[in-house]
Amino acid sequence: MQATMFYGPEDIRWEHRPDPKIELPSDVVVRVTAACVCGSDLWGFRGFHPEGDPRPIGHEFVGVVEEAGAGVATVKAGDFVVAPFVISDNTCVNCRNGVQTSCLHRQNWGGLDLHGRQIDGCQGEYVRVPLADGTLVATPGQPGKELIPGLLALSDVMGTGHHAALAAGVGPGRTVAVVGDGAVGLCAVLAAVRLGAERVIACSSHADRQAVATRFGATDVVAERGDDAAAVVRDLLGDTGADCVLECVGTEASMDQAMATARPGGRIGFVGVPVGGSQVRIGPMFQRNIAVGGGVAPVRAYLDELLPEVLDGRLDPGPVFDLELPMAQVADAYRAMHERRSIKTLLWP
Amino acid sequence: MQATMFYGPEDIRWEHRPDPKIELPSDVVVRVTAACVCGSDLWGFRGFHPEGDPRPIGHEFVGVVEEAGAGVATVKAGDFVVAPFVISDNTCVNCRNGVQTSCLHRQNWGGLDLHGRQIDGCQGEYVRVPLADGTLVATPGQPGKELIPGLLALSDVMGTGHHAALAAGVGPGRTVAVVGDGAVGLCAVLAAVRLGAERVIACSSHADRQAVATRFGATDVVAERGDDAAAVVRDLLGDTGADCVLECVGTEASMDQAMATARPGGRIGFVGVPVGGSQVRIGPMFQRNIAVGGGVAPVRAYLDELLPEVLDGRLDPGPVFDLELPMAQVADAYRAMHERRSIKTLLWP
Repeated sequence: MQATMFYGPEDIRWEHRPDPKIELPSDVVVRVTAACVCGSDLWGFRGFHPEGDPRPIGHEFVGVVEEAGAGVATVKAGDFVVAPFVISDNTCVNCRNGVQTSCLHRQNWGGLDLHGRQIDGCQGEYVRVPLADGTLVATPGQPGKELIPGLLALSDVMGTGHHAALAAGVGPGRTVAVVGDGAVGLCAVLAAVRLGAERVIACSSHADRQAVATRFGATDVVAERGDDAAAVVRDLLGDTGADCVLECVGTEASMDQAMATARPGGRIGFVGVPVGGSQVRIGPMFQRNIAVGGGVAPVRAYLDELLPEVLDGRLDPGPVFDLELPMAQVADAYRAMHERRSIKTLLWP
Repeated sequence: MQATMFYGPEDIRWEHRPDPKIELPSDVVVRVTAACVCGSDLWGFRGFHPEGDPRPIGHEFVGVVEEAGAGVATVKAGDFVVAPFVISDNTCVNCRNGVQTSCLHRQNWGGLDLHGRQIDGCQGEYVRVPLADGTLVATPGQPGKELIPGLLALSDVMGTGHHAALAAGVGPGRTVAVVGDGAVGLCAVLAAVRLGAERVIACSSHADRQAVATRFGATDVVAERGDDAAAVVRDLLGDTGADCVLECVGTEASMDQAMATARPGGRIGFVGVPVGGSQVRIGPMFQRNIAVGGGVAPVRAYLDELLPEVLDGRLDPGPVFDLELPMAQVADAYRAMHERRSIKTLLWP
């Protein structure tokens, strides 16, 4: 098959790889219908996490089961499936607690399985899926092509935005500010609107992203940055901060902005992977009773709730994809996102 | 009157001070029935926050209203009152949000009022109370002496323990670990039991404090410290961490212990004032989805709920006081707590 390999900073290659096959009874092999590039894939591309060896890359995809191992019970050949961005058994104590990203048997796309065998990255034609019963969720039938972007978003960004909203306690009557206008931040806007927030303030200085935020139901858009943005939010909310702040970037500046945006007693839900010195400052948390929760989103936990809504059209995070490319042009997809010409790029095989 | 003054490290004096009088229509003057020493009072005593000038000290008391200003509506001369450890108007947006410690008109015992006038410390015979309507809560009648310790605990430590429990999401069926065996930690045990936790694990290596924890309903006591304590808690809970961890110390070691004790997806409620390099580490929070909330406890918010239970005997945090002294011996009270000969010392005028 053809699949994507990460060789190092700015070196992404579409190349020949071994065809995956069933290695364990709990495996399935999926033919990828659509995959995409994640903001976190860009770190390596940008040189943040230099790796010695070429490695398979990509952790978001939807597809059709090609073959199922003898021990797989919940999906079968021909099923259309959504794959969360981590592999989990969905039965251990942490999975039962709804934290599949801390599964005791967690495995990562592009990493090694529990027996040391290579797991495929997801920006490719086929993927071997370990722990298929715990990881994949099948749709009732074959979704139309128009639903693919929305379903693909459930693989990571929509579930991650939803996680930020839950961690921040979003609900009816709440005022919400979203820091970050990437695909996750935009999905966080959508999640907050879906959860009934009274006010959803998106922070974005880019017209294209502001447009998606508004389409997703943001009641206000703030174009300022940092402390200025926090001050504008406080003004909008009558000189207090937001009940709930969704931090969807992961930098020191974005976390500080989130802290300055929350009202006393407010909550920050953070899902931006902490890079570049991001920290949670205990001083303002303590003095102003700002709670901080969130982390690596257990999107598997949310599929049961979100998938039916995407299938029947009530929920459509698909517009976060503003560029579609053939997978063979995967390197262009990375560049487009790296240069912020695309919010999120969808790859068709 | 006689009252306590802080002169510097290990220099606490009981001395003559001006009799307080009504300065503003919203003031009352209270005759102190009982006061006590807080763990946070000890920082100055131990030299952590050296202050240039002598200052009045003490922020926990109960008493009887001696005289009420013309603008005071909710308490009158003769009322027995409980005073929270901060002064608040109870009407501003932050108070309405239940965060009276972030009151827009917040004032501190021993500090200056909004007009620059000295406010008394509470380890004295009389106290002028600014914003009396917002700050004080009166009991229906005159409580018996046996209720005084429990009522005094509502001034700070019981409300603070309750805040830790709420911030950590304690409720029926939850497993709880409490880090810290000071008066706040012990009240946190009591609060968790009261909120219906299934398992309440107290971490304490001191027999006297273990005894109070057990009396308050702790189901288990762990005598180990730090990572060893966290490992024992995980063993007790079947190789996972606690749903809720109540951090009631405020040091770097205690916060790290709390982080190691929480299960993936768990919550830490922290009320230990951060000193000595305490920080919230974003890495484990993110990777394991550990939420951290809490801060300066808005004990005023909890008086409506907790006070009736203390009055009718359902809730008795009084046993945190294991030493009672005449207020004139206040310096001995500080020494007893500093040397850990007393968990918490009650002072009678």
